[in-house]
Amino acid sequence: MSDARPLILFDPHPRTEAMVFTGDVADELGREARLVTHFGSRAPDDLVDGVLADVEIIVGQTAMPKERLDRAAKLKAIVNVKANWEPNIDYEEAQRRGIHVLSAAPAMAPAVAEFCLCQAIALARGLPAADRRFREGREEYGIAGNGSAYSLHDAAVGLVGYGNLGRALVPLLRPFTRRIAVHDPWLSDSFLQAQDVRPSGLEAILSQSRFLFILAGVTSENEGFLDEAKLDLIPADASVILASRAEVVAFDRFIEMASQGRFRAAIDVFPQEPVAAGDPMRAAGNILFSAHLAGGLEASYARIRDMMLDDVKQILRGLPPLRLQRAEPKQAAMARSR
Amino acid sequence: MSDARPLILFDPHPRTEAMVFTGDVADELGREARLVTHFGSRAPDDLVDGVLADVEIIVGQTAMPKERLDRAAKLKAIVNVKANWEPNIDYEEAQRRGIHVLSAAPAMAPAVAEFCLCQAIALARGLPAADRRFREGREEYGIAGNGSAYSLHDAAVGLVGYGNLGRALVPLLRPFTRRIAVHDPWLSDSFLQAQDVRPSGLEAILSQSRFLFILAGVTSENEGFLDEAKLDLIPADASVILASRAEVVAFDRFIEMASQGRFRAAIDVFPQEPVAAGDPMRAAGNILFSAHLAGGLEASYARIRDMMLDDVKQILRGLPPLRLQRAEPKQAAMARSR
Amino acid sequence: MSDARPLILFDPHPRTEAMVFTGDVADELGREARLVTHFGSRAPDDLVDGVLADVEIIVGQTAMPKERLDRAAKLKAIVNVKANWEPNIDYEEAQRRGIHVLSAAPAMAPAVAEFCLCQAIALARGLPAADRRFREGREEYGIAGNGSAYSLHDAAVGLVGYGNLGRALVPLLRPFTRRIAVHDPWLSDSFLQAQDVRPSGLEAILSQSRFLFILAGVTSENEGFLDEAKLDLIPADASVILASRAEVVAFDRFIEMASQGRFRAAIDVFPQEPVAAGDPMRAAGNILFSAHLAGGLEASYARIRDMMLDDVKQILRGLPPLRLQRAEPKQAAMARSR
Amino acid sequence: MSDARPLILFDPHPRTEAMVFTGDVADELGREARLVTHFGSRAPDDLVDGVLADVEIIVGQTAMPKERLDRAAKLKAIVNVKANWEPNIDYEEAQRRGIHVLSAAPAMAPAVAEFCLCQAIALARGLPAADRRFREGREEYGIAGNGSAYSLHDAAVGLVGYGNLGRALVPLLRPFTRRIAVHDPWLSDSFLQAQDVRPSGLEAILSQSRFLFILAGVTSENEGFLDEAKLDLIPADASVILASRAEVVAFDRFIEMASQGRFRAAIDVFPQEPVAAGDPMRAAGNILFSAHLAGGLEASYARIRDMMLDDVKQILRGLPPLRLQRAEPKQAAMARSR
Repeated sequence: MSDARPLILFDPHPRTEAMVFTGDVADELGREARLVTHFGSRAPDDLVDGVLADVEIIVGQTAMPKERLDRAAKLKAIVNVKANWEPNIDYEEAQRRGIHVLSAAPAMAPAVAEFCLCQAIALARGLPAADRRFREGREEYGIAGNGSAYSLHDAAVGLVGYGNLGRALVPLLRPFTRRIAVHDPWLSDSFLQAQDVRPSGLEAILSQSRFLFILAGVTSENEGFLDEAKLDLIPADASVILASRAEVVAFDRFIEMASQGRFRAAIDVFPQEPVAAGDPMRAAGNILFSAHLAGGLEASYARIRDMMLDDVKQILRGLPPLRLQRAEPKQAAMARSR
Repeated sequence: MSDARPLILFDPHPRTEAMVFTGDVADELGREARLVTHFGSRAPDDLVDGVLADVEIIVGQTAMPKERLDRAAKLKAIVNVKANWEPNIDYEEAQRRGIHVLSAAPAMAPAVAEFCLCQAIALARGLPAADRRFREGREEYGIAGNGSAYSLHDAAVGLVGYGNLGRALVPLLRPFTRRIAVHDPWLSDSFLQAQDVRPSGLEAILSQSRFLFILAGVTSENEGFLDEAKLDLIPADASVILASRAEVVAFDRFIEMASQGRFRAAIDVFPQEPVAAGDPMRAAGNILFSAHLAGGLEASYARIRDMMLDDVKQILRGLPPLRLQRAEPKQAAMARSR
Repeated sequence: MSDARPLILFDPHPRTEAMVFTGDVADELGREARLVTHFGSRAPDDLVDGVLADVEIIVGQTAMPKERLDRAAKLKAIVNVKANWEPNIDYEEAQRRGIHVLSAAPAMAPAVAEFCLCQAIALARGLPAADRRFREGREEYGIAGNGSAYSLHDAAVGLVGYGNLGRALVPLLRPFTRRIAVHDPWLSDSFLQAQDVRPSGLEAILSQSRFLFILAGVTSENEGFLDEAKLDLIPADASVILASRAEVVAFDRFIEMASQGRFRAAIDVFPQEPVAAGDPMRAAGNILFSAHLAGGLEASYARIRDMMLDDVKQILRGLPPLRLQRAEPKQAAMARSR
Repeated sequence: MSDARPLILFDPHPRTEAMVFTGDVADELGREARLVTHFGSRAPDDLVDGVLADVEIIVGQTAMPKERLDRAAKLKAIVNVKANWEPNIDYEEAQRRGIHVLSAAPAMAPAVAEFCLCQAIALARGLPAADRRFREGREEYGIAGNGSAYSLHDAAVGLVGYGNLGRALVPLLRPFTRRIAVHDPWLSDSFLQAQDVRPSGLEAILSQSRFLFILAGVTSENEGFLDEAKLDLIPADASVILASRAEVVAFDRFIEMASQGRFRAAIDVFPQEPVAAGDPMRAAGNILFSAHLAGGLEASYARIRDMMLDDVKQILRGLPPLRLQRAEPKQAAMARSR
């Protein structure tokens, strides 16, 4: 007795079962499809080989070079449930075969954007320092305690990078200020203007922003592009939020400049995680640290599951995906993973 | 040679000259009016008496009982440049005389709203704790460090009080969530619905909000209305932001419940300021403290000056004020000052 | 047996019972108050005299000079249920007595704004003409039929007057264009900028608007202020919507210029209503006529009743009104009625 | 001497040179590319054959079956400058080859949406009839003339189809009403909810909408799907706007029902254009006719040129297109052209 329902492979490592395959997901998809799952590591080759001829949808980061795509005659879609593209797929070949290559990255963006907004205001308003001073009995009240405080309202804001993170962040910024500039070399000025943000060159945005959000993903072409000369353009005492990937900045110089008070910084990503126990940056002043906490909370995983379910059902119905992000083959191939 | 220009008295204490009478204000008003100023204390009686017959606009908190109003035949407007109404004016008499009684309270609201939003996300996302842990070498990365984190996105939010603070805060909340409930006994349900928020009873809002903003001003009628029984309604682990006036809650019980982990709290206002040096609350956990920092920054004073200038010019032109808040005599009389 | 409930007088003529005193209004208010009503004409003096000592709220346009206000010791509020202020009230005396003088004008504004928007697009897109041509068998399809059509999208729009009508119209315009200029001599530039519209001088707005909305109410000071010289500034082929009061323009010249094709016009208000049967304007080309239809539909009256009920209940509870418009004594006194 | 610049073929018929190849387009693209153009008819086979091996971008509706795609080794993109997909392209083969297949349909949508909104309010408020009555001396003023008028404000609105037209229309509707329901069988409920509209079944939307916008494109599967039984669900006196394609409704029955006063209708599209000279529908009452005027105005063509230029430059730079619409191979293949 054969089961004619479509076959879906779940191979989501490093995402866990608890993140992307909760009971409701299993139930809902289990009604329409046969599910083959593997958690805790990359699905072994023999498991993958066993399903390749039948699989219609892969959810996860299974390696899918041309050689495997050649053997996956029924494959309709691959859903990457991490937050960034990996070099695990032959993107151009997948496109040739009409396979939707999708990413759940948009699902993480709201949580990251919320965190970035909070970091920005915390830097400008001195919030964590306020709590420390109160506990140490050194607090000053009202304007006396606000000598170095400034506001996001009506401030000049700049975003370097306007992908999922930038697009989730701008709506949170708009009630504060209309002065939102964006630098993204992949997007035309007209497109940005149609999005109601102000297109800007890189040097202009670095030198004119009171609040600077570094949101650019790392590619094979832009590692370290925010070098010392670029960082020197940042205005004195600006608030800089490093949210996307540490490799886009000259990191040690960034830490040095912030700790010297050149600008205020919030850092959630590091070149190496975990950070070494004795790393002197841990004692740096003027910086608000967090250990890669911006995106990875339950609400984000719920959103991944929700988007993934939605688009898997669309695809099983022969309709285009609506909510996940689609791979642009050239750009996805350029993305550098951790 | 007499000067026929209208006379304006500046008596803004406790606001300072630097806050409300910067050079540009002096220049701009000085073109159209005669200015009499007193800073650093309440203008002495003889100075006030000297101008009362001629004064057209008072900017500040000069005592204006009926007896003085009787002698101020040309008085058109009184502009309170603090953030709350005081019992220094006979509001009903002023209204009878057609004197505009105005307040700059709306000017402070954006800075307070921004601070409240940051506090809310900081509590939910554990931001100050994240920095501490990193510096102490105890950080956990990604989801491991986010075990108790939750998001403002799509959360149930409740505001107790919908005056200037509430109205400045709601636009900042809207990009996060549509679930915004408001309790304000002075406002009709229809009015709140027309404002696109959900009217709610007090007990409902206390028991249903994941994020609770306490924004009610203190009046002669509502001191301590958020008593122990009311506080007990707050859901476990909710994030509670006390922003307006400490006297509206049973403060000691509030501190106790938060420090026991009953809910998370951010506190910017205290029954007594400064807080006593040895006050044990300084060591309380689960609370984010700040010393009345939410409103009083330069940006707020700039906004006060801007609104005050605008409406003073309107009034000198015989037009109604547009930007400052108008006193409702009964409600202004009920306001309790610090 | 006396009835201690507050007394409310309904004297709304020319508004009818069907407009402002439907069954639900009667029921709702009847629970809290004693109602004395008169419809179809101005309430006779003896009826008014009979209630004056007790009346707390008057809904309607009863004449209330100082002499009557003197005898209305309990009067708290007067609610004008027409769309404009009348000289029936001693506004300054009412204010001295702390009587809220309110108007339901905001209730009419949404229907008028909707009508104006439709007129504007109808003029620009040639909608009524299109139907005529089709019925006459003269239609041309697609671009061939659109030779003189233009769009509201991204167009320069100008509003003369920014009262209730302007404020209801701007939200409807915003999805089309950001280029919204406003001229209103009673409002400061800062106030308009805070409203996110561009303040403009009169001549600038007349000469730069592709779509011009004339929304200014008539006062004792501005009758005919849009004279021939001003009308000459309107750009060729602009779309002009005359919505508020005909007396603000040099009407005959306006008709002449439009019919000559100098600009397109939509006219809903006339110096004399009804318009004389043989008036030659009835044959004028390039004009879209309607007989004062912009505001007076059931939906508007429902909104009047809703706002009036809401604020009457606020006032009976000793709270300030929230939804009706408040009289500014000087400006209300200046309003010219029909 | 050879020209190494990329080659672009313009074959836009039925779009004209004046619509899509104005001087600025020629200049701008002429800097970066070699342009081969043909206007007034479909480019002849020999011209196409001559460029096929070199062409990188085709702007127009050149027939591109697999056989031609096989010979177009450098082809990167095809830009359809009509408003709908045609069966001129082997969509699946194009996708296999990584060729962007794009449409300028979004460029027409704003003008159509504006026209639809105007039609809707014109039907509800009786605007063309008002002008006729005034000219005929039969007008009634104010509420007397508004007996059958109703408002879009707070009304129940339904959209059948949520493609480019629906997405351009919803922002124009939002300032009027929050009650916006959408039926689109290709879109998931979650997607529609994320768009802040209410997903609805077809029968529900037909029976519950006071304003019904029929915006569905015709496919090989849905011709005439709004048959008599479906049309019978429309509430009495609703306003129905037929904007997309006439073939989706049982047209004769639609005309009949509207002319009998069953509902109000605005019709801009016809099964056969031009409509026969003697067609009795030309005399039908209760209908607002226009001859396919909703989209085709200069502003729309300017928008086509703008979007086309933008994305052609993106593609020449090796970047993904941003503004034009991308073909979904299955859905594009289903589209029925005129």
